[in-house]
Amino acid sequence: MPTSLTPIAAQGPKVSRFIAGYWRVNQWNKTPQELLRFASECLELGISTVDHAMVYRSEATFGKALALDPGLRSQLQIVTKFGIKPMGFGELGAQAVNHYDSSGAALIQSLDASLQGLGTDYIDILLVHRPDYLMDVRELAATMATLRAEGKVRYFGVSNFNTHQFEVLQRELRQNVPAGLVTNQIEFSPLHLTPLEDGTLEQCQLNDCRPMLWSCLGGGNLLAPASERHQRIHNALRVVADEHAVAALETIVYAWVRALPCAPLPLLGTSNIERVKTALAAEKIQLTREQWYRIWEASTGHPVP
Amino acid sequence: MPTSLTPIAAQGPKVSRFIAGYWRVNQWNKTPQELLRFASECLELGISTVDHAMVYRSEATFGKALALDPGLRSQLQIVTKFGIKPMGFGELGAQAVNHYDSSGAALIQSLDASLQGLGTDYIDILLVHRPDYLMDVRELAATMATLRAEGKVRYFGVSNFNTHQFEVLQRELRQNVPAGLVTNQIEFSPLHLTPLEDGTLEQCQLNDCRPMLWSCLGGGNLLAPASERHQRIHNALRVVADEHAVAALETIVYAWVRALPCAPLPLLGTSNIERVKTALAAEKIQLTREQWYRIWEASTGHPVP
Amino acid sequence: MPTSLTPIAAQGPKVSRFIAGYWRVNQWNKTPQELLRFASECLELGISTVDHAMVYRSEATFGKALALDPGLRSQLQIVTKFGIKPMGFGELGAQAVNHYDSSGAALIQSLDASLQGLGTDYIDILLVHRPDYLMDVRELAATMATLRAEGKVRYFGVSNFNTHQFEVLQRELRQNVPAGLVTNQIEFSPLHLTPLEDGTLEQCQLNDCRPMLWSCLGGGNLLAPASERHQRIHNALRVVADEHAVAALETIVYAWVRALPCAPLPLLGTSNIERVKTALAAEKIQLTREQWYRIWEASTGHPVP
Repeated sequence: MPTSLTPIAAQGPKVSRFIAGYWRVNQWNKTPQELLRFASECLELGISTVDHAMVYRSEATFGKALALDPGLRSQLQIVTKFGIKPMGFGELGAQAVNHYDSSGAALIQSLDASLQGLGTDYIDILLVHRPDYLMDVRELAATMATLRAEGKVRYFGVSNFNTHQFEVLQRELRQNVPAGLVTNQIEFSPLHLTPLEDGTLEQCQLNDCRPMLWSCLGGGNLLAPASERHQRIHNALRVVADEHAVAALETIVYAWVRALPCAPLPLLGTSNIERVKTALAAEKIQLTREQWYRIWEASTGHPVP
Repeated sequence: MPTSLTPIAAQGPKVSRFIAGYWRVNQWNKTPQELLRFASECLELGISTVDHAMVYRSEATFGKALALDPGLRSQLQIVTKFGIKPMGFGELGAQAVNHYDSSGAALIQSLDASLQGLGTDYIDILLVHRPDYLMDVRELAATMATLRAEGKVRYFGVSNFNTHQFEVLQRELRQNVPAGLVTNQIEFSPLHLTPLEDGTLEQCQLNDCRPMLWSCLGGGNLLAPASERHQRIHNALRVVADEHAVAALETIVYAWVRALPCAPLPLLGTSNIERVKTALAAEKIQLTREQWYRIWEASTGHPVP
Repeated sequence: MPTSLTPIAAQGPKVSRFIAGYWRVNQWNKTPQELLRFASECLELGISTVDHAMVYRSEATFGKALALDPGLRSQLQIVTKFGIKPMGFGELGAQAVNHYDSSGAALIQSLDASLQGLGTDYIDILLVHRPDYLMDVRELAATMATLRAEGKVRYFGVSNFNTHQFEVLQRELRQNVPAGLVTNQIEFSPLHLTPLEDGTLEQCQLNDCRPMLWSCLGGGNLLAPASERHQRIHNALRVVADEHAVAALETIVYAWVRALPCAPLPLLGTSNIERVKTALAAEKIQLTREQWYRIWEASTGHPVP
């Protein structure tokens, strides 16, 4: 039975409870036909939301798969991002350093490239990829409002913003686009606990929106431990997995991140449909608080105060 | 002349200006009769507010004293706390790790144990003892509203919450219980200055409530210095005490913490009525700003910028 | 062509786009006549706003120059500050330690000394120089309202306040003086990037006011590098200066700080009118985002994530 759609924000669109991340799609060595099959299998499992970004160079690759099945686009919610200008990258011109550009012109240019690559005429949720210290919120919010009116983008969000950066854009955007920001896509995993303390999770709750979480598996370090700390977390996950009679640690990791009260939406990064199913199994696992804190303690190396 | 009662929040109850902490009551080796005498002497001095927590295991001990004088309960304001499930602790079941549980069920279970231990049918102020990363504010606030309607708890607060954690619960609680959170009980002392910078004190001001302060004497380190830093603070306190012709450093420490503009309510931890009087003498001491900053400088090891 | 005036806040006064800082005026070895000439030359260049503080001991020195040209005062916007009581300083009495005093009495005493030293009957913008942990916002805001009603101070601001300290005073002040705080004067330079992350800049935007920036040149370390990091920034500035065919690094530094979306107002610290012109040349320089981030990367030692 596929997972059902769920609203990402009070005034936001519905998305799937897990999001298929296409960050590394160019390393998957899949033909368009193979990629279409993967996306279709995800969809059958209920994963209709897909995550891209201009700098991943994932859009054109995914677009070739989409082009093979014209009916697929309308069943998906496409998330993509703009705002990073990497050193020496593609059409945006060679640059001496990676940097950010949240200007209206950069947004329009990046969005047009995204739409063209994906072969679609709209993005469901467009995110500002990184907080740009030079972000002109008036110009940005006005450009967002125009793109929404044109039908090119339905909703907007941010990624990797701290609470101050979120708030200053949110205030301006709400005056232009009432739905406001519908998400903050941030890093969170048993290895990366910062959001538990820095207010980003509570801010989502206060703004009635839900975070997307990237790198929930800690870049693979939880499954193949590379340090004493990794091993400690790995062991704690193993014990909890056994308690739930679950084979894969991934299932427990996703159950662990999904237990947060902000009801986050984890991104997956795999190209393997079996590992997707392993992640989805987390929907059926409810950790006890004691199990959750055991994993937290394994990560921090000390008990709660 | 006993100290008079003072409101803890704009819509909160009146409490005493100092709060008798019963954290270590089981180490005091007092009979119920002796404990009743201590509580009565505190009350004669104006200290009518008492601080407990389920995990202190202090309630049943205090309850035995209360039972000896049925008229005493109505003269006290009882603060207690719930939400910590310690490793292997009592009726809550053996646990592999200390952890937090702010669920509605945990609240009800803990509160019932508190009421039974104290031999009372209501708590004046119930605090969430620690910020639970899994706190479901809707469930929690709804449970709080029910308990208030039932008359089991009159007011609610938190302890050791950062500003984000406070805000997310406060917003929800105010929709259920208009008085909202009436305090944040936090650690503050000349040894622990973090709240001066992290916004918790200002947040109390902005929410029209007052913090309770625990460990104002730094766990005794200020009176019996165990490090160069402790000694430096000790010496600064000594000089200020001499300037006020006060014998006890404790009086100066309590005057120092009470000087904060958020008008905090210090907890005492002693079982000795003479030391209670020594603390209360702080009410008559007004430090100059220059004296206050001398102690701050002794703690930080550098002058203000 | 002189630079034009610009509002510092939604309900604030107009100020010049750069502010002449008189912090070190007593080390300039200028006669009153020479100082008057410098101030007049600044004014011809459009720099009509001047920055003082009671503790700089700059006011009486500047006042002697002002006294030579009675028509000058009305063309200037005078910023000064109160609230620091330095060790052993002047009329405020010898003190064992530097400390802060934001009491109403300290404000009135300091302001009277400022007015007398400057030989004027009003201050355009009076700042609380440092955040005083003992700040009584009710007393302070009430005193500010009285001084405004008396015509002695037209607007108020703060300096070096974190977001919590700003917010608690702002809420109270707005109930007394609707314009509220019109600025937060903070340190910012390619060497000191903290405000990019701590929310102070976004707070100004959310409060519709603009920060003033002190020590933009990093105390001279950018021009005469004293460390590997300084040298790295120096080199990055040099390259950008060459790309703009600009001789002086200072011009690039001021263009860099002025690029922030909060539209900050940089303080100058020089007594040399040629260096003032060099700074003002920044008004004509628009850095590309890539140039801006190159300098950021030189400062942090790593690329953006």
